[in-house]
Amino acid sequence: MVPGKVATIEDVARAAGVSRQTVSNVINAPSKVREPTQRKVQAAIEALGYSPNAMARRLRTQRTSTIGVRLDAFSGGISGVVLDRFVHALTEHASTRGLRVLLYAARTVDDELRHINEFADGGEVDAIILTNTAPGDPRAARLRERGIPFAAFGRPWGAHDLEKAGHPWVDIDGAAGTRAATEHLLERAGRRIAFLGWPSDSGTGDDRERGWRETIGPRAGDPSAPRLISAETVPEAQAAVRSLLQDNDIDGIVCATDVHAIGAHLAAVRGGRSDLQIVGFDNTAAAEALGLSSVEQLPEEVATAILEMLMGPEGTKISRPPTPTPTGRLVEPELIVR
Amino acid sequence: MVPGKVATIEDVARAAGVSRQTVSNVINAPSKVREPTQRKVQAAIEALGYSPNAMARRLRTQRTSTIGVRLDAFSGGISGVVLDRFVHALTEHASTRGLRVLLYAARTVDDELRHINEFADGGEVDAIILTNTAPGDPRAARLRERGIPFAAFGRPWGAHDLEKAGHPWVDIDGAAGTRAATEHLLERAGRRIAFLGWPSDSGTGDDRERGWRETIGPRAGDPSAPRLISAETVPEAQAAVRSLLQDNDIDGIVCATDVHAIGAHLAAVRGGRSDLQIVGFDNTAAAEALGLSSVEQLPEEVATAILEMLMGPEGTKISRPPTPTPTGRLVEPELIVR
Repeated sequence: MVPGKVATIEDVARAAGVSRQTVSNVINAPSKVREPTQRKVQAAIEALGYSPNAMARRLRTQRTSTIGVRLDAFSGGISGVVLDRFVHALTEHASTRGLRVLLYAARTVDDELRHINEFADGGEVDAIILTNTAPGDPRAARLRERGIPFAAFGRPWGAHDLEKAGHPWVDIDGAAGTRAATEHLLERAGRRIAFLGWPSDSGTGDDRERGWRETIGPRAGDPSAPRLISAETVPEAQAAVRSLLQDNDIDGIVCATDVHAIGAHLAAVRGGRSDLQIVGFDNTAAAEALGLSSVEQLPEEVATAILEMLMGPEGTKISRPPTPTPTGRLVEPELIVR
Repeated sequence: MVPGKVATIEDVARAAGVSRQTVSNVINAPSKVREPTQRKVQAAIEALGYSPNAMARRLRTQRTSTIGVRLDAFSGGISGVVLDRFVHALTEHASTRGLRVLLYAARTVDDELRHINEFADGGEVDAIILTNTAPGDPRAARLRERGIPFAAFGRPWGAHDLEKAGHPWVDIDGAAGTRAATEHLLERAGRRIAFLGWPSDSGTGDDRERGWRETIGPRAGDPSAPRLISAETVPEAQAAVRSLLQDNDIDGIVCATDVHAIGAHLAAVRGGRSDLQIVGFDNTAAAEALGLSSVEQLPEEVATAILEMLMGPEGTKISRPPTPTPTGRLVEPELIVR
């Protein structure tokens, strides 16, 4: 055996000249195994310092091969599947690197800090992936204090300099997505391209609006390219677009989400404007079903990028101590034209 | 301390008369703590047999407080969120019982059997929740062989006697859902209620069709209540309903999924039959956005029921040995009328 390598059940089987199942039987159901074989296997176990329990092995190696992710109650909604797609992809890619994903629920920040303490006290995870980070996030401070490597899915919106966020993060480049959507509509639909977004300020919402505003640039003063402040639901988006179409001559609408796009689509179809070109965001199954173009966020690429940050391009171990130079990475989304 | 109880960091803090953070510092950053305090804490640690590492504690107690669930690559689609909603609810409810959820990916049955072996060798999970079980499922056999408690989300379709499935399971009562949908349409829409489902035989599909067929009962011979064999996608469902409406006078359609319902809805609206009453299945965000009635599966109740099977109504430990009398439980879905 390579020095420092932890003995596996296969190593014991090879050393004792028996099958893996026989080793397992000696440990779990010794009555199934004849005594001389038992003795041979026990000798190999002792010679190799094999511990039949992975937890004991992990205790020695201080590795759990586990990445923690907080998963809260399902929020529902058309656009709610992005985090789920991320978790699917993370589980898949982590598996190929020999890691598993540990989910925990937390109702409050304090609750999550308590989980972090437990993970640190117990050496239960090799790393944590945070979501919904903010500047001065207490979870980031706690994780640093407790020495748990971590990265975030999402930028700490509001930080003055995201490059200096103080921790690694990967996010979707929302502005690049709406930029592509706006360019597409300027080319295919006409000059008068409106934007339909959330009513309240949010990092994600502002980012997506910015992509439209910067692209529409020279036309931004043009009243035929209005910025629409709709609310959060399909009926509200529908009502907003219905009154927009009464007063304005619009060629197309770039939407902050597929929820907005579906509302806009219903307003257009029911208002006799089936020609109105609409692009959504999130590329949900609902947009696909209605034949609407949409911006695909590629959460699978976020999962790959986060694992690369924590483990290197090909690694099977979380880097410890954490990556010395925290960096941010933006994943460019993809416009799906329908 | 109660005999047999495992000492916690709080027990040590109380015994040494210091704060929890001080105990943690003695373990993780002793230089922060003055020597007399260090000695006091070390004495308490030894007196109580406290192990600072949860893995070590778990090794002694043979409990991991972890439930394993296989999660594969995101399959997409309108109806693909039911398993995700289940995972959300499982994480939430498991958290309140002091458990976490461990996700693993597997590409094949052999791959999953390998994971089960690793879990058993390493004592890594207290229980497993299987999905997509079949009669004679090799995973069930392996889990029994290795002594890992388990339950399934979903019936082993095709078993002669589901009550004798040989393992506990919880499933959605699909037939009850389409029964409620059919009764609703018979009352509200008229006598001529069609069914729109999948083209190929499947346990889930047959079950949902059965609820419609048994309810339509006396009218089953009536050609105005046809059973439609559509394909899997929205456009295919749309085409099937378009030709149905050309030749038949239909009052309503019960659908096997929201994918079918959206196709039916598009065919009805575009064919000038906005009055046609449609009920979907899965209660997806897309059905909600379009204002379609749908059957809600309540995967959150499945999560609660599975935890009750594994742990009892209030328990915080997985029953070991596994529940002696394996039982199945059906969760009745809820018709959401819009």
